[in-house]
Amino acid sequence: MRRNMRRSARKAGLPPGSLVHTGEPSGEATCLRLVTYDDEHCTKRTIRHLPDLDKINRGEPVAWLSVVGVQDPAVLDRVGTVFGLHPLVLEDIMNIAERPKVEDFGDYIFVLLKLPGYDDEQDEITSDQVCLVLGPTWVVSFQEHEETAIESIRERIQAGTGRFRQMGADYLAYALIDMLVDQYFVVLEQIEDDTERYEDLVVEDPSPEVLQDIHKLKNAMIALRKSVWPVRDVLGFLERGETPLVQEKTQVYLRDVYDHTIQIIDTIETFRDIQSGLIDIYLSSVSNRLNEVMKVLTIIATVFMPLSFLAGVYGMNFKTLPELGWRYGYAMFWGVVVLATVLMLRFFRRKQWI
Amino acid sequence: MRRNMRRSARKAGLPPGSLVHTGEPSGEATCLRLVTYDDEHCTKRTIRHLPDLDKINRGEPVAWLSVVGVQDPAVLDRVGTVFGLHPLVLEDIMNIAERPKVEDFGDYIFVLLKLPGYDDEQDEITSDQVCLVLGPTWVVSFQEHEETAIESIRERIQAGTGRFRQMGADYLAYALIDMLVDQYFVVLEQIEDDTERYEDLVVEDPSPEVLQDIHKLKNAMIALRKSVWPVRDVLGFLERGETPLVQEKTQVYLRDVYDHTIQIIDTIETFRDIQSGLIDIYLSSVSNRLNEVMKVLTIIATVFMPLSFLAGVYGMNFKTLPELGWRYGYAMFWGVVVLATVLMLRFFRRKQWI
Amino acid sequence: MRRNMRRSARKAGLPPGSLVHTGEPSGEATCLRLVTYDDEHCTKRTIRHLPDLDKINRGEPVAWLSVVGVQDPAVLDRVGTVFGLHPLVLEDIMNIAERPKVEDFGDYIFVLLKLPGYDDEQDEITSDQVCLVLGPTWVVSFQEHEETAIESIRERIQAGTGRFRQMGADYLAYALIDMLVDQYFVVLEQIEDDTERYEDLVVEDPSPEVLQDIHKLKNAMIALRKSVWPVRDVLGFLERGETPLVQEKTQVYLRDVYDHTIQIIDTIETFRDIQSGLIDIYLSSVSNRLNEVMKVLTIIATVFMPLSFLAGVYGMNFKTLPELGWRYGYAMFWGVVVLATVLMLRFFRRKQWI
Amino acid sequence: MRRNMRRSARKAGLPPGSLVHTGEPSGEATCLRLVTYDDEHCTKRTIRHLPDLDKINRGEPVAWLSVVGVQDPAVLDRVGTVFGLHPLVLEDIMNIAERPKVEDFGDYIFVLLKLPGYDDEQDEITSDQVCLVLGPTWVVSFQEHEETAIESIRERIQAGTGRFRQMGADYLAYALIDMLVDQYFVVLEQIEDDTERYEDLVVEDPSPEVLQDIHKLKNAMIALRKSVWPVRDVLGFLERGETPLVQEKTQVYLRDVYDHTIQIIDTIETFRDIQSGLIDIYLSSVSNRLNEVMKVLTIIATVFMPLSFLAGVYGMNFKTLPELGWRYGYAMFWGVVVLATVLMLRFFRRKQWI
Amino acid sequence: MRRNMRRSARKAGLPPGSLVHTGEPSGEATCLRLVTYDDEHCTKRTIRHLPDLDKINRGEPVAWLSVVGVQDPAVLDRVGTVFGLHPLVLEDIMNIAERPKVEDFGDYIFVLLKLPGYDDEQDEITSDQVCLVLGPTWVVSFQEHEETAIESIRERIQAGTGRFRQMGADYLAYALIDMLVDQYFVVLEQIEDDTERYEDLVVEDPSPEVLQDIHKLKNAMIALRKSVWPVRDVLGFLERGETPLVQEKTQVYLRDVYDHTIQIIDTIETFRDIQSGLIDIYLSSVSNRLNEVMKVLTIIATVFMPLSFLAGVYGMNFKTLPELGWRYGYAMFWGVVVLATVLMLRFFRRKQWI
Repeated sequence: MRRNMRRSARKAGLPPGSLVHTGEPSGEATCLRLVTYDDEHCTKRTIRHLPDLDKINRGEPVAWLSVVGVQDPAVLDRVGTVFGLHPLVLEDIMNIAERPKVEDFGDYIFVLLKLPGYDDEQDEITSDQVCLVLGPTWVVSFQEHEETAIESIRERIQAGTGRFRQMGADYLAYALIDMLVDQYFVVLEQIEDDTERYEDLVVEDPSPEVLQDIHKLKNAMIALRKSVWPVRDVLGFLERGETPLVQEKTQVYLRDVYDHTIQIIDTIETFRDIQSGLIDIYLSSVSNRLNEVMKVLTIIATVFMPLSFLAGVYGMNFKTLPELGWRYGYAMFWGVVVLATVLMLRFFRRKQWI
Repeated sequence: MRRNMRRSARKAGLPPGSLVHTGEPSGEATCLRLVTYDDEHCTKRTIRHLPDLDKINRGEPVAWLSVVGVQDPAVLDRVGTVFGLHPLVLEDIMNIAERPKVEDFGDYIFVLLKLPGYDDEQDEITSDQVCLVLGPTWVVSFQEHEETAIESIRERIQAGTGRFRQMGADYLAYALIDMLVDQYFVVLEQIEDDTERYEDLVVEDPSPEVLQDIHKLKNAMIALRKSVWPVRDVLGFLERGETPLVQEKTQVYLRDVYDHTIQIIDTIETFRDIQSGLIDIYLSSVSNRLNEVMKVLTIIATVFMPLSFLAGVYGMNFKTLPELGWRYGYAMFWGVVVLATVLMLRFFRRKQWI
Repeated sequence: MRRNMRRSARKAGLPPGSLVHTGEPSGEATCLRLVTYDDEHCTKRTIRHLPDLDKINRGEPVAWLSVVGVQDPAVLDRVGTVFGLHPLVLEDIMNIAERPKVEDFGDYIFVLLKLPGYDDEQDEITSDQVCLVLGPTWVVSFQEHEETAIESIRERIQAGTGRFRQMGADYLAYALIDMLVDQYFVVLEQIEDDTERYEDLVVEDPSPEVLQDIHKLKNAMIALRKSVWPVRDVLGFLERGETPLVQEKTQVYLRDVYDHTIQIIDTIETFRDIQSGLIDIYLSSVSNRLNEVMKVLTIIATVFMPLSFLAGVYGMNFKTLPELGWRYGYAMFWGVVVLATVLMLRFFRRKQWI
Repeated sequence: MRRNMRRSARKAGLPPGSLVHTGEPSGEATCLRLVTYDDEHCTKRTIRHLPDLDKINRGEPVAWLSVVGVQDPAVLDRVGTVFGLHPLVLEDIMNIAERPKVEDFGDYIFVLLKLPGYDDEQDEITSDQVCLVLGPTWVVSFQEHEETAIESIRERIQAGTGRFRQMGADYLAYALIDMLVDQYFVVLEQIEDDTERYEDLVVEDPSPEVLQDIHKLKNAMIALRKSVWPVRDVLGFLERGETPLVQEKTQVYLRDVYDHTIQIIDTIETFRDIQSGLIDIYLSSVSNRLNEVMKVLTIIATVFMPLSFLAGVYGMNFKTLPELGWRYGYAMFWGVVVLATVLMLRFFRRKQWI
Repeated sequence: MRRNMRRSARKAGLPPGSLVHTGEPSGEATCLRLVTYDDEHCTKRTIRHLPDLDKINRGEPVAWLSVVGVQDPAVLDRVGTVFGLHPLVLEDIMNIAERPKVEDFGDYIFVLLKLPGYDDEQDEITSDQVCLVLGPTWVVSFQEHEETAIESIRERIQAGTGRFRQMGADYLAYALIDMLVDQYFVVLEQIEDDTERYEDLVVEDPSPEVLQDIHKLKNAMIALRKSVWPVRDVLGFLERGETPLVQEKTQVYLRDVYDHTIQIIDTIETFRDIQSGLIDIYLSSVSNRLNEVMKVLTIIATVFMPLSFLAGVYGMNFKTLPELGWRYGYAMFWGVVVLATVLMLRFFRRKQWI
């Protein structure tokens, strides 16, 4: 989350609409893959030369161009020209700090989403930006890195499983969005495991490090919530059928994904409440530990201070100290010591300190 | 709540629309019961063979097919075909982690609700999913387990009590929803009893375990609230009469259930406030205990430290220590001790420490 | 508030629309009083036999039937038949756990409100349910117990004071609602007195019992707010003039009551903030008390520990301990003791501990 | 704020629409001043006899009747008759506990506002009620006490400065409202000064009295916010131009005042956040003071307990205690004492306690 | 933020519409710069004499008059006359305490924004006011001080880079707004650096000063949020295309800036959550330090109190104290001391105190 902000600051001062990649350079080359299919045929190929882009026949039933790697302005520019994308769309695709959003340009819809991940080491949410442009018969997807989940959709189309081959480009867009939203459940499950680990720790070993870790978890939940809230708006827009690019029979599927985002938001809220509870329990454990320590101190002091006083009394050098001469004086002293100790301990037991 | 989330993660990566049961396998076989009735007749039978489903006469005044057990895709698929249900509806029925919702498919309305329960041992909310599909003259209900409450509705229809026989399928749907919402009151009552049990405990025995238990209760309230909020939207939709499937004379009943959900939400908020108050009192009790301990320590130290010093003085070996030779030196020593103790105790009493 | 919830649970499982009284049996018999009036005449009588109900001439300018006691289903049923009330209205009247609400049945409006009270002993809000049914020329009011405030309205009508005799049934309904809303101010004043009592107590005697009492007050505010919020919606509905049963010249009066409910809600929020502040001050007082105790302990220990050490030194039995033989050794010892004590006390004064 | 509530309780039980003054009797007589002006002339006179009211020519370009003192029902009644005011308007004017509000009666608009003040002694917000009735060519203002700010507007009209003489009655109403809203800035500045005074105090002298004072400030902010929120709605109504009584060229001025109320609300929120921060810092200071005290105690105890033990050892009367006979035994004892003390102090320094 | 409030109080009591500068006098003279351009030509000049203002040809494709310094009423008045600005607009420009806002005057749109800055020393947000007036073919900008960022836009226009020369005055206004919004990212990055610096400090050195600093940061976030929220409304208004002065092709750019403000608000919320977490950790660190101190005290007391008692026992002067005469009495004493110490330390280790 923070890293993202930094990138936006990097752009401050530049003229608007400049194509500047704001992520960290990955070194990987941009890779373009094209899949075209109708209910009978399906072809798949990799585009190696930019001029080949112009040959894409967008009249085919459904064409899916997948762009992996968004660091090369030249490639983006060419794709933008071929599909008639607005310069600001290209700018948003390169600026990987954008929030999820949907924009309706009439001829096409631009959808910007995040593929969430969870870095176990740092207790931090990672997120790769995935952009979709949905036209009447085509989808162009832009992603930072190669993702297995997206690859699996390509395989399913080729294999002809699912409803892909019977439906249009909007169903393909739906399938990609559905896959991205499902990743949130995976991340939530990891966070749940992490949270559970702290449930005992806050009672048994309430160190400041534990508190810092819980706060990291909480910050991760905040980042996740920030990332999923706009997704809800995106899906709300698509599901309401305000654009002719999404057919009615696809809307019911999008409504389903919409419900899932609501469920994700619900779960995130629940986790935040649980984590706040953990912090409460942590603070209470620290207080209880102090109580424990103080009880030990008080018991020791309460037992030994009067006894020490007594020993001090019989260590005095008064000439006329009668007990010193008694035959069983010393034995009586110990008798008093034992008696006093027993009474004290009883008192502590009644106070439930021991 | 958490368990539910896990199930959704299990589905991540699967193609959308796959019929996968996400609950734990129960081992029970799916059971289908059919009740058909009009104001004069009422028949009830159990359907044992799937092909019998096709023979259901949906033209009868009111037909209620109750499906208990949602683990068998074959059964669901057949029911879906007979009643013309959308694949996503069937998927939602099997995915028991869905949120309560209502969906209007024109020919029929799909209502997904929860039957809440309360696990006293774990202080956790349990919830079984119950789905209703309301058509013009029929209702199909899907539930995970056999439920007594639903059985009682069937008996009332048979016995002809209530208004069932004079009203249509929408009234039957209302009666089922009303029964589900009433269960929230039962759960709330159990939670109230649990909450009251802690009211004394937080003052008398504020251990971290008590705090953890209150937090469990609070988490249960969160889960309950999450579960009842969407029910309110479901009833709001039905009650507003936006669908011709719900007649006007049934709307007034649904408005009544709607009011009950509002009341449930109100009560949940009240409980949460009370539980937050309990945590405050708990923390304050812990602080007060510390104060108690410290007062004992301070009293002991304040009384015996000066006295020990005095005893130490007369234990010194100075050659020229006049008091040691005095006749009533030792008696005077004790006099000073008693006097000092009395003064100290008075001081503590004035400070209200004892 | 809680008691109410319990009553609703008692109804769970019953067929909807059953006339079951959910309050505690009061033992009082139901009492029906009829007042009819126009700008010239006013008659008042008590209806002792149910059949007399049928003779009520609802064509008179304004007729007010007041039903005290809602435990007898037979009476309610009869009243319902005479005035043509929906079964659910009767059910709501008997179920005294309902939230305030308004329902427009076209021919008549059903208004359910609460008469709030404050139980000083338990710091709890009590509330009696009062229902009004407003028809074109008549009002039927239902209440659990005889209330002085309602009686005073009857007297004013008879005496011809106020605007009753010049206005219609809607003005009568307004007067009843206004009277109920005014009771909230009375309750708020009592709570204010209670709150003020704790303002000094939290500083002077911060015991856990005080905290529990403040939390009870806070819970009472929550209950009160829950009870007054829906009243606002009720009045908003009536004041907007969405029903022909409320004339335009009465709307301006209802707007006035509406403003009062807003003012009540404002005051409740203010009280809650003040009570939260009290809890803060309470917790701070507890901490300060601990500081006080610890300062006493530290002062005592800091003064007497070095002195005791010194006395211990001169109690040692070293053969070669020169000071013991000095002529003014003992006097010097006391000199050192006094000097050390004075220095210590100065140190404490500089630290502002004494 | 509280005082106000009390006054409303005083009215509970009275028939609605009774003209009862709910403020404290001020003893001042009601005073009526009339200013009439157009772009050329301006007359100003005091009305001493009620019958003179009837002679007011409301056809003059702009007439402003200012009523100071709202305790005399006879005067209000007469003014109400002359200007055709609704009885509830008069009741609102006398009931000085009302919230700011605007009511459109068609022929005239009734605006009720507050003139805020700040009582430095009690840290409390005071507020005088000011009512305006805006007709097509006249304004009647009602206020509890003579106010300098209102007097200054009268002088400006007479002097012909500002735009008064070129504009209508609505501009006069605007000028009065603008003057009232500006007073909030004055009050906020006073509160800011008070808040700043506590910023050092919470660190240097965190006594419970300081906390109580901050809470009083916070309560004052709450009261102020309650008082300014409805003003925003009032101005929103006027500025939207929903009434023909406010001309379009005056709306732009009202929009300006509207912006000021938003700014006031913003500032109040900021102050509340700052005051909450002060409470946090206060609590932390108290904790730090405890730490300070405990460190002193621990240092003293840690240094002198082992030393006292050592002195105790050489005070023992064992026959065979070799060190006692050593020549430099006593010197060695002191050597050990000094060494131990130095080591202890180093340990504390490493722990950053001293 | 506070300083601003003060300035508004300074204006209270003045007649509305007075041109009074509420900022601190800067001493700089007002400076006017005019840039006019179309797609082929671009001229730039500084206006030194007010009468030259009248010669501005507003018919040129795009004219940008930039006014630096808003303290001279005469200049503002003249600019207002030339461009036909409403007196209240001029007043808003001079009153530098206004909130960001947009006002549509039909012929022109008035936009008031802030250029945020961050004062590292005081941890305070600074903000300079920047006003834009957008007419059909011209933009007038008002700013308090010369700003590099604005200068860079002028240079870009002159150089013909960017889309300025092809677009109208609305695009110029967009570019100016975009530049202002980008500054928020710069400020956020500085605050982020500051926040990170405290992450370790709260655990390692939790002094009240650290807490005060974090609260200052938090207050800065509050100020920043207050300043950016209305910017969102401003952009929402412009982006919705409710005015013909903003062309459709510029709207898509404004939507982009709108998204950035949302992102800024998101980031601010995240930072506030992180800072709240820091305060939690701080408080927990203070508690842990107290625990540390108390453990040391308890260990010392627990070890030495029993030992001192034992030494006291053998310092007693009983005639019949057998151990004193034993041959290895003294050795045994030390044996007991060592044994007791070892046992104690083991006990502490088991309790995880050392």
